[in-house]
Amino acid sequence: MCRWVAYAGPDLHPSTLILDTPHSLVAQSLHSPLGKETVNGDGFGIGWYPADAAPGRAPTLFRSIEPAWYDENLQELAHAIESPLFFAHVRAASGPPIQQTNCHPFRHQNWMFMHNGVLRQFGVMKRDILLEIEPALFSSIRGTTDSEALFYLAVTFGLAADPIGAMGRAIREVERIGDALSVPHPVQGTFAVTDGSTIWAFRYSSEHRSRTLFYSEDMGALQETYPDIDRLRQYGAGARVIVSEPLSDLPGAFVEVPESTVAVLEDGSYRQEAFLRDA
Amino acid sequence: MCRWVAYAGPDLHPSTLILDTPHSLVAQSLHSPLGKETVNGDGFGIGWYPADAAPGRAPTLFRSIEPAWYDENLQELAHAIESPLFFAHVRAASGPPIQQTNCHPFRHQNWMFMHNGVLRQFGVMKRDILLEIEPALFSSIRGTTDSEALFYLAVTFGLAADPIGAMGRAIREVERIGDALSVPHPVQGTFAVTDGSTIWAFRYSSEHRSRTLFYSEDMGALQETYPDIDRLRQYGAGARVIVSEPLSDLPGAFVEVPESTVAVLEDGSYRQEAFLRDA
Amino acid sequence: MCRWVAYAGPDLHPSTLILDTPHSLVAQSLHSPLGKETVNGDGFGIGWYPADAAPGRAPTLFRSIEPAWYDENLQELAHAIESPLFFAHVRAASGPPIQQTNCHPFRHQNWMFMHNGVLRQFGVMKRDILLEIEPALFSSIRGTTDSEALFYLAVTFGLAADPIGAMGRAIREVERIGDALSVPHPVQGTFAVTDGSTIWAFRYSSEHRSRTLFYSEDMGALQETYPDIDRLRQYGAGARVIVSEPLSDLPGAFVEVPESTVAVLEDGSYRQEAFLRDA
Amino acid sequence: MCRWVAYAGPDLHPSTLILDTPHSLVAQSLHSPLGKETVNGDGFGIGWYPADAAPGRAPTLFRSIEPAWYDENLQELAHAIESPLFFAHVRAASGPPIQQTNCHPFRHQNWMFMHNGVLRQFGVMKRDILLEIEPALFSSIRGTTDSEALFYLAVTFGLAADPIGAMGRAIREVERIGDALSVPHPVQGTFAVTDGSTIWAFRYSSEHRSRTLFYSEDMGALQETYPDIDRLRQYGAGARVIVSEPLSDLPGAFVEVPESTVAVLEDGSYRQEAFLRDA
Repeated sequence: MCRWVAYAGPDLHPSTLILDTPHSLVAQSLHSPLGKETVNGDGFGIGWYPADAAPGRAPTLFRSIEPAWYDENLQELAHAIESPLFFAHVRAASGPPIQQTNCHPFRHQNWMFMHNGVLRQFGVMKRDILLEIEPALFSSIRGTTDSEALFYLAVTFGLAADPIGAMGRAIREVERIGDALSVPHPVQGTFAVTDGSTIWAFRYSSEHRSRTLFYSEDMGALQETYPDIDRLRQYGAGARVIVSEPLSDLPGAFVEVPESTVAVLEDGSYRQEAFLRDA
Repeated sequence: MCRWVAYAGPDLHPSTLILDTPHSLVAQSLHSPLGKETVNGDGFGIGWYPADAAPGRAPTLFRSIEPAWYDENLQELAHAIESPLFFAHVRAASGPPIQQTNCHPFRHQNWMFMHNGVLRQFGVMKRDILLEIEPALFSSIRGTTDSEALFYLAVTFGLAADPIGAMGRAIREVERIGDALSVPHPVQGTFAVTDGSTIWAFRYSSEHRSRTLFYSEDMGALQETYPDIDRLRQYGAGARVIVSEPLSDLPGAFVEVPESTVAVLEDGSYRQEAFLRDA
Repeated sequence: MCRWVAYAGPDLHPSTLILDTPHSLVAQSLHSPLGKETVNGDGFGIGWYPADAAPGRAPTLFRSIEPAWYDENLQELAHAIESPLFFAHVRAASGPPIQQTNCHPFRHQNWMFMHNGVLRQFGVMKRDILLEIEPALFSSIRGTTDSEALFYLAVTFGLAADPIGAMGRAIREVERIGDALSVPHPVQGTFAVTDGSTIWAFRYSSEHRSRTLFYSEDMGALQETYPDIDRLRQYGAGARVIVSEPLSDLPGAFVEVPESTVAVLEDGSYRQEAFLRDA
Repeated sequence: MCRWVAYAGPDLHPSTLILDTPHSLVAQSLHSPLGKETVNGDGFGIGWYPADAAPGRAPTLFRSIEPAWYDENLQELAHAIESPLFFAHVRAASGPPIQQTNCHPFRHQNWMFMHNGVLRQFGVMKRDILLEIEPALFSSIRGTTDSEALFYLAVTFGLAADPIGAMGRAIREVERIGDALSVPHPVQGTFAVTDGSTIWAFRYSSEHRSRTLFYSEDMGALQETYPDIDRLRQYGAGARVIVSEPLSDLPGAFVEVPESTVAVLEDGSYRQEAFLRDA
């Protein structure tokens, strides 16, 4: 129900991806060609790690309920910031109120999380989901979304030690709760999570027809293929994004991540593996 | 660049028109089939006269920069208010900042004004336009839009005594200023103005290709034509709207106002006359 | 940590109490002489029942995170509304985020609730409190405050059938939870609740040193005592308020409600009785 | 009617001054000991130049109408930013609407400006002041405050070439306009202006009783005087502020700037000279 961008690579101004590409994230906030909703105007957020940050440093968040397309502070900051790893998200609310604490990304210590999609009938499942969250984490939940609840469920299930396993267990737990309450296809979406150095992005839904997810091809190869496209030269070697939908129409620039897959950006390289395909 | 509704008739909850019709104004804020921009999410406003108000009473305004589709207060108020004459507007900003003082409708004493369209290259013309406004009115201008400037120009030119004439003189003055500054086709739009008992709605542009404008047919006739449509029964005799675009797809319910025309709602009846066709 | 006003009587513009008295609620938002915090700028809310409403009708809410002193819509609406029973509240947040869903009053069906004070160490007690709320009500909780949680606890414990008993049981339950978690003096505050015809206002804290609470004297007697004060004449017979602190310095106009007491406004008359004094 | 801080020196997190000192700017937004108004809750702004910026680079602005004390984004950014020169401002509005475009600091190319005080009866003088602004600058004015108008008047009068002279001429022009319109003591305040490398701060009012202004003593000397105060060690050599009122109660740390004086921070050193004392 939302659109998002996750970037890792050499220090980059977020404006490059969220303002200055043909289908930038802010452009998608007004009109998203592949989105379930074409308008993603229910607030936005950006979270970034500073250049040269020590491992384990918490990211900075800037979130607002204003539509991304007219928020002047976003324009200012996206040009001023430089970061080697950032998340940006525009929201199309599926129910929970439009308020800053419900804007993605969510943060826990040095971790960030964002989501496009929905836990279906969240009002029905919410109490049972919250009960599964580690009680010591309970007061860290500041908003009221399905997404943040899933994030803390994953933290509960060991996100820090085993991100892929913990996300899998959290999703399975929601599916178990949903099944018990007769909620059809409880989980839908794409999910991005990071510890500040690696990005894990999941494409998964209970019905195996998930929201779209793409990664960008190797930047060096792209620059060779398109030597005349000046825009590409602002990206350094190893720059990569994972996104809800392509940021441009450049053939070959964006590759779809398959259904039930986790995509991993680490040390400038991309890999993917099957995720929850055993169901 | 916006969408609007002007209602006159028996006391009505604004929710009937701005929330509960198939193409309600709030629905148009997310998706406007006939709008130049399909999203009108840059704030909204509603202004209404109370039931049984004495003539000359100023209207009440509720305006916000939040998109109309998610503003919870708008949902509350649109159901709580009852009014015999109200304006409602959703904005797609053409340049001036998105702030409450730039949300339509604008108010001066017992008068209200709203606009869909643009004074082209307003930054170029603004100083000269402001200079033509009566100096005593200058400090009444609270926002920074082209629309409010045109409103105060019309007030300067005698809106209270002769609304149609004053609007004509104000538009001609902007065209004169624009021509002197080489601004092509300076005026574009539809304009609604009211003193609390009569509504005047203008469709005019310098290039004679104005934004759309419609009025609703006689409600009694519509109710006879569509005896099975329950929704129509909530309107009393004499209920009329003038709108940027039809609020439903009901054949015959909405009639287009011609180019260069002023539409008038008064005492429950509709009439129209040529406006600035001599150019 | 907040200030509030509850009014019952003949139809009244809320502006009379929240804008136009010497120590109006909006004046208290900037400077509250008796408040624990002198500034109550963390949002506000007003909830009102329409004139001539059928019993059981839900109130209308207008809530905003803007400071009450500069919200232009509040100025507009407080003059436009007329109501025989309304609540108004200005917030000084004690921890939970400043967002519209955390602004008082809260509403459930035809009931409204507001609170000045705090459930201490709410982060510690929150999970246990939420678990005591009727699961079917769980998804009705839209915000994240201690106040709203207490409200739904009271709804769970039978607010509709026995308001005084249910409030007592809810407070005792929070005290029980707090004691188990070693939270000293878990409950502090004044609480107002209404079904649209009767107002119950509670002054209670676990340590028996509660925030201040006052009721206004009989209006007819006040008007006789002060025949020269024009301002008093705008109130009809039977107009009464219960307030966090006096709205004026008029001697005799406001009378303090004792500690551990529930004040009741019903059918134009005031009464009070002991509340939770057995502990 | 506001409070502000201007910093120049080694790169510093703004949080050091606006959040972490005993009388930080954000603390002053809730309670300002020396302010004409004790609450400065009508929005805020911060503008900063990046570390290692090329001369002539425009600063970044972050401005919001939320009270500074609860804006979560301000907390985030003030810790994330590092800058060798920044302005920060909390507003207590004197009339013009509370909206982002009216929040200080204001920016023109590489220049920033902020103001504590008022142009008296601005509504009366506004038209005449605007007429004196260079027409080519007219459309750069985005808000509606007296402060921004004075800034563009100074730009008109040669701010870039001669900041002290231009500010003097702009103030004299407002006094001339005010005198002609029988406005008593038209100008009041303290004014800070910078090009990104030098800060000029003016204390001046037509009645020669201006709002307070202070500069901080040499940091090396302070650190020697107070070797046990850890807080001082986070400031590098040459760190200096000019402020509306002291950020701490440390004796000797802050020195008052005299009436009718311009204070100058340049290359790590402070100097002051008489300003408009010939009147």
